[in-house]
Amino acid sequence: MATNNAKASNAKKKEVKKETKLGLTYKKDENFGEWYSEVVVSSEMIEYYDISGCYILRPWTMAIWETLQVFFDAQIKKMNIKNAYFPLFVTENVLQKEKDHIEGFAPEVAWVTKSGQTDLEVPIAIRPTSETVMYPYFSKWIRGHRDLPLKVNQWCNVVRWEFSHPTPFIRSREFLWQEGHTAFATKAEADEEVLQILELYRRIYEEFLAIPVIKGQKSELEKFAGGLYTTSVEAFIPNTGRGIQGATSHCLGQNFAKMFQINFENDKGEKAMVWQNSWAYSTRTLGVMVMVHGDDKGLVLPPRVASIQVIVIPVPYKDADVTAIKAACETTVQTLSNAGFSAELDTRENYSPGWKYSHWEMKGVPLRIEIGPKDLEKNQVRVVRRDNGAKIDVPVNDLVEKVKELLGSIQESLFNAAKEKRDACIKVVNTWDEFIAALNDKNMILAPWCDEEEVEKDVKARTKGELGAAKTLCTPFDQPRLAEGTLCFASGKPAKKWTYWGRSY
Amino acid sequence: MATNNAKASNAKKKEVKKETKLGLTYKKDENFGEWYSEVVVSSEMIEYYDISGCYILRPWTMAIWETLQVFFDAQIKKMNIKNAYFPLFVTENVLQKEKDHIEGFAPEVAWVTKSGQTDLEVPIAIRPTSETVMYPYFSKWIRGHRDLPLKVNQWCNVVRWEFSHPTPFIRSREFLWQEGHTAFATKAEADEEVLQILELYRRIYEEFLAIPVIKGQKSELEKFAGGLYTTSVEAFIPNTGRGIQGATSHCLGQNFAKMFQINFENDKGEKAMVWQNSWAYSTRTLGVMVMVHGDDKGLVLPPRVASIQVIVIPVPYKDADVTAIKAACETTVQTLSNAGFSAELDTRENYSPGWKYSHWEMKGVPLRIEIGPKDLEKNQVRVVRRDNGAKIDVPVNDLVEKVKELLGSIQESLFNAAKEKRDACIKVVNTWDEFIAALNDKNMILAPWCDEEEVEKDVKARTKGELGAAKTLCTPFDQPRLAEGTLCFASGKPAKKWTYWGRSY
Repeated sequence: MATNNAKASNAKKKEVKKETKLGLTYKKDENFGEWYSEVVVSSEMIEYYDISGCYILRPWTMAIWETLQVFFDAQIKKMNIKNAYFPLFVTENVLQKEKDHIEGFAPEVAWVTKSGQTDLEVPIAIRPTSETVMYPYFSKWIRGHRDLPLKVNQWCNVVRWEFSHPTPFIRSREFLWQEGHTAFATKAEADEEVLQILELYRRIYEEFLAIPVIKGQKSELEKFAGGLYTTSVEAFIPNTGRGIQGATSHCLGQNFAKMFQINFENDKGEKAMVWQNSWAYSTRTLGVMVMVHGDDKGLVLPPRVASIQVIVIPVPYKDADVTAIKAACETTVQTLSNAGFSAELDTRENYSPGWKYSHWEMKGVPLRIEIGPKDLEKNQVRVVRRDNGAKIDVPVNDLVEKVKELLGSIQESLFNAAKEKRDACIKVVNTWDEFIAALNDKNMILAPWCDEEEVEKDVKARTKGELGAAKTLCTPFDQPRLAEGTLCFASGKPAKKWTYWGRSY
Repeated sequence: MATNNAKASNAKKKEVKKETKLGLTYKKDENFGEWYSEVVVSSEMIEYYDISGCYILRPWTMAIWETLQVFFDAQIKKMNIKNAYFPLFVTENVLQKEKDHIEGFAPEVAWVTKSGQTDLEVPIAIRPTSETVMYPYFSKWIRGHRDLPLKVNQWCNVVRWEFSHPTPFIRSREFLWQEGHTAFATKAEADEEVLQILELYRRIYEEFLAIPVIKGQKSELEKFAGGLYTTSVEAFIPNTGRGIQGATSHCLGQNFAKMFQINFENDKGEKAMVWQNSWAYSTRTLGVMVMVHGDDKGLVLPPRVASIQVIVIPVPYKDADVTAIKAACETTVQTLSNAGFSAELDTRENYSPGWKYSHWEMKGVPLRIEIGPKDLEKNQVRVVRRDNGAKIDVPVNDLVEKVKELLGSIQESLFNAAKEKRDACIKVVNTWDEFIAALNDKNMILAPWCDEEEVEKDVKARTKGELGAAKTLCTPFDQPRLAEGTLCFASGKPAKKWTYWGRSY
């Protein structure tokens, strides 16, 4: 019987899809780029905007963003980091104070030159990030060691007018992020915070978005412009074989302090310079989530970030007791809501159940509950998992317990599946030939490296091509043993460390 | 004894103030403008920025803003309004679609014309508000009556490059706000929502910020550019005798719908046009709060928005049992925190108790608790109210109950005091002479009006001067009886309504 039902349901679904043109045109494994663009639009996360590289973040996106925001904001408040808001605009003069920094951002800076019909006296930049916006004031606010640490964060928009291929969430001209900026009396305190924040970023990816990431340090070439060292969490997109920088936590050292004269009198009464950090994660997180979990039916949302965890759909077959089914649906939503789940009922009468199935699958809702006459009769509901399509008949009395178990299981399965796929793409290589083969196979490559900037530049030059050059992703904190005498895969010099390499976003 | 203590404490305070130059240079009643600038800076709400009209919102500000945000966001979510985020940028083409609207904003629009060293093909505007950013997409998303209502809100920054005298919070070139944008099938639904939102704005002012406001409708001349009608909550600043628009809830009617072709098929299958609203409140709210409650000692925070409600200060007179005092302070903070109050301990050893009193008074913390040897001995704490300076000795056992009562009382007193002062400035006039006299006396004037735009323009022209012209503030919903035969104070024509007039921010 179940099989027949399933067949009937499938037939029905196909019919509806044809009718309404729901469903994706592109397949994830066949045309990843088009698939991605289609998913973010069809799931109602994104609307393309009439300015290239700018996107509308629709409510379905913002609900996820807010979930991450609530978590992260509470965590940093526990660390006594306080929210502030600094201006969107920065003068050319201040922007250019730190030479390396401005070199890194200059080509992407958007300039305001006019208000109304009037030319401004001097052009004003829109912040690409806020180091130079904030630090003149850090210099003013910090006088003695008792003013330290100074720890602020802001939730804001930033603008980087990039001309490379824009991609929703991943590479956009305006994006939302948080940026933390802190100053300490000692390097040890700064070092410690860098890792505390990085751990929060790991948790955002692994615990909320169900995406495995690697913690590590960026190479000198890839570190933040003007900083001392950069740590990051790195994710990987198997379909394109590209690494993606998930979020970064920088120790700025004393470079900015020097430029902006952020000095203090230390506890011995001597003049000293502060040690600074800055760290950020952005709406890029959501793009990684779509890329990693999405499938040919659309978005797949991890339960912990899904604004609707359970969608309840009445299935009133002909001659069914419509009123009783609706009542059962309402009770189900009420029961789940009372138990703390986010459950909604789709009672729209102008759409068929099949259309609704496809619609909510497209939007990635983790669990669907169908209630039809049979379910009513048996005092059960049918629960369908978004991640693997499994159908489970659940007695009404077990509903809360079972839904809890299933949502936990989906969260875990998504992470495990992503990790399995990611791990299958990690290749350990020791020679240049192995490296090139692994790169061509779209892998994330762990290789022994001499840690010389010139060698990294050389690797970039030698792998240049249509798909972009290979570069270092990070040197993982979790280092495999480096056998004595191991040589760099690229230079043949003695290797100093294991480093991840690959193409990246 | 208490009197002696108070005297000693006062003497001490004066000495410390002299030492450290804490305290305000300007008095609220003598030089309001300078007093305001000094308070927002000295209380650490604002830092002036090196671009005129832009200000840094420091953590002390953001904590208040977030309190209002949490309240408002939860309320609109209950109304099924969902958060979205639309781009910061808008093309000239789209910005100019609604003629009246762009006329209202054009002189203040900031234009991006360059990125890096490259000129943009066409200049791009920074949103002064987002009607024209959003509505082309409303047109796309709304097809049938089942797509309605469409209700979104966004928390964002907007830019209005005004050249008139900038004032922190009140008139700044960039500010933070929420802007809600909704579309309905019927005017009745739009009308209803306008007032629901206006009521939330009233609650922000009256229940959170302890500021009395008047709900009413703007005149045709003062309404939102391009809208149908505008409602607002109006506050009043007695010191300057100026009204201030607190927040606005607009019914846009169908004007934007016409320009952006936001049509739908109604339930009869006919093509119809949506009815739209937009509504916003901004960081201006915080400026009104400073202006209304602040005094010559600095900021005065209403307890409901104070991020620290109670500051606990140890007062270790010479030879006192410092350890026991500190322990008592810690217990006090713990007890209050456990009871749900926001209490903090100021243990800094490099500052005297007197300096700390002044410091936390400047920052407006509602209650200060002092614990010295005498208090320890008597198993009590001394509680000092920020609003009226009253000192109350509270037995430790009554602490939670008494603090609750005092915070409630402060919230109420602040509102009542503000209302009393505001009400004392409301003058009812019937003739032009009375009107001019009342205006010169810095009043908020309630006058019978013929409701003709030409007459309002005429009043503006006739009252032009150094302090700015008088204009309508709002026509209050709560209308006094208009006796038959009442004539307009300005035109002598039959009056149609009572309207508030005055100078304004």
